[in-house]
Amino acid sequence: MPYKVLVIPGDGIGPEVVEAALYVINAAAAKYGVDLEVKTAEAGDAALRKYGVAMPPETLKLADASDVIFKGPIGESAYDVTSLIRMRYVLYANIRPVKNLPGVPAVRDIDCVFVRENVEDVYVGAEYKVGDVAIALKVITGVGTRRVARVARRYAEMRKRKVTVVHKANVLRVVDAFFRDVALEELKGLEVDQMYVDAAAMELVRNPLRFDVVLTTNQYGDILTDLAAQVAGGLGLAPSGNLGDGKAMFEPVHGAAFDIAGRGIANPIATILSAAMMFEWLGRSDAAQAIRSAVERSILQGVKTPDIGGNSKTAEVGRYIASIL
Amino acid sequence: MPYKVLVIPGDGIGPEVVEAALYVINAAAAKYGVDLEVKTAEAGDAALRKYGVAMPPETLKLADASDVIFKGPIGESAYDVTSLIRMRYVLYANIRPVKNLPGVPAVRDIDCVFVRENVEDVYVGAEYKVGDVAIALKVITGVGTRRVARVARRYAEMRKRKVTVVHKANVLRVVDAFFRDVALEELKGLEVDQMYVDAAAMELVRNPLRFDVVLTTNQYGDILTDLAAQVAGGLGLAPSGNLGDGKAMFEPVHGAAFDIAGRGIANPIATILSAAMMFEWLGRSDAAQAIRSAVERSILQGVKTPDIGGNSKTAEVGRYIASIL
Ligand SMILES: CC(C)[C@H](C(=O)O)[C@@H](O)C(=O)O
Ligand SMILES: CC(C)[C@H](C(=O)O)[C@@H](O)C(=O)O
Repeated sequence: MPYKVLVIPGDGIGPEVVEAALYVINAAAAKYGVDLEVKTAEAGDAALRKYGVAMPPETLKLADASDVIFKGPIGESAYDVTSLIRMRYVLYANIRPVKNLPGVPAVRDIDCVFVRENVEDVYVGAEYKVGDVAIALKVITGVGTRRVARVARRYAEMRKRKVTVVHKANVLRVVDAFFRDVALEELKGLEVDQMYVDAAAMELVRNPLRFDVVLTTNQYGDILTDLAAQVAGGLGLAPSGNLGDGKAMFEPVHGAAFDIAGRGIANPIATILSAAMMFEWLGRSDAAQAIRSAVERSILQGVKTPDIGGNSKTAEVGRYIASIL
Repeated sequence: MPYKVLVIPGDGIGPEVVEAALYVINAAAAKYGVDLEVKTAEAGDAALRKYGVAMPPETLKLADASDVIFKGPIGESAYDVTSLIRMRYVLYANIRPVKNLPGVPAVRDIDCVFVRENVEDVYVGAEYKVGDVAIALKVITGVGTRRVARVARRYAEMRKRKVTVVHKANVLRVVDAFFRDVALEELKGLEVDQMYVDAAAMELVRNPLRFDVVLTTNQYGDILTDLAAQVAGGLGLAPSGNLGDGKAMFEPVHGAAFDIAGRGIANPIATILSAAMMFEWLGRSDAAQAIRSAVERSILQGVKTPDIGGNSKTAEVGRYIASIL
């Protein structure tokens, strides 16, 4: 039985970086004998303009039937696509590894994995406006915290058995304290520390190597992972995996970057490394490892896009990485 | 009539950095003929241990009667002191200028002013727990947004007439969109752009000089200002002013830093620059400017604490700056 992969190219630079990643996905699948059935579907701003809806029913049907979704960035309608997918399939753990790549100038050395809760917090969409007052609910549940903490535990057990729980329980004394308490409970037996989110933002610039696995809530994770990616050398390199029980979505951390779309200069590495995470999740570490190694070699060999000091085109980088797998 | 100043030394390194700042405050007041009536009161973790309450009634009475509060950092009880003061006196605009200092190594060049809404957002303390679910309200009002946006306008008019509004309206489509819309309305006629908070975190590392005045909500401001201070060279240098209509509180951005408390090595510059902001707010730019200039000269002359490469003691730095005003 092949794995059913739904590809959503997305908006802006999405189609370009996803095309580049598909060279790599197809080559890796062939070389390592991974049986994939790949379908492609539209979603995002372009779909909204064309069909009046950012996530067309046809795409939703294909997503429902897929084992895994491989997605490019979405523009202004990201909430209706990205967040919808995360919530509909309860992809409760957003895994964002952040690590320097050899040959890429960085602000600091960094090597950590963010485990971001992905379906709760102020991002649940429970918002109201009455007269001059607007209110959103920030929602944290015990069950939601426990399951994502267990994912953090799993990553910690594969790494240094060290987790930093990031919250703001000194101000959010009920909700963030609840997140912290449940998380600490689930992480017992590991080396665990905690940090306020403002301090964590600062430490990611000052001394990022102090972090190994970082467990945090949805919005703090959103902010801190963009920041951490920049510390490591730029958003063009940061992959992510949204994991649920039995289903997953992989996507670059970066956005649609409309300003450089269509010029063939977008860096496909974040998307290609997301493909590596997908193979890993499918149980094929061999293919995943081959992709990661090929990415590093391509950079060292100078086949890279302008954002990291090269002059290769997006598609070239994809084809080259596919060729040296 | 003297200005009534209530000094709250606070916890951890608080008493040390406030003592150093008081040398400067007293010297500046004497030299520039500013009539201050300074009282001191306890609040924070130490007060909590001593009196069973972090903000003792006596301190509250003095705070009520003061024109301005000058405060050191507070430890774990910060919400009961810092946030209480902000909310009780409706100090709705938290002004946090971030700028390199000559002679202090920085991650990047930066020169901007954050105007952080200071009494709304998820920090209002409306939190509930029912069974396995914890909920906090994120509250944004039109009136609260308008008044802080007007402060941002004032700062922009003194600078480059440029404001960046930071929010997450692509996900928080009601509350953050409301903040954005009201802010944009109030800022009409200026050069205004907007940015999502995750992108802003990234840009503060990538290209901070693109920011001039930044207007944002309470928690985003909390996170981004710690980050920006680190980009500029460290939290030891970042001052702040909490402004209301007719009352204000000045404090360093940094925390109580219990790990280095009592050793006389804490950097007092954040607190001393907060004193400069206080004189500015009292209408005494002459004293404020003199303090800022003396701070710069003291660093260039090598009178500085270990965090920025010197070996002077906290009190020495304060006394030296007071002496060269
Ligand atoms: C686009 C948006 C819905 C999304 C988020 O805020 O989660 C993005 O910023 C991310 O980090 O994946
Ligand atoms: C200590 C805390 C109440 C405070 C806040 O979160 O606002 C602090 O972090 C700050 O930024 O002034």
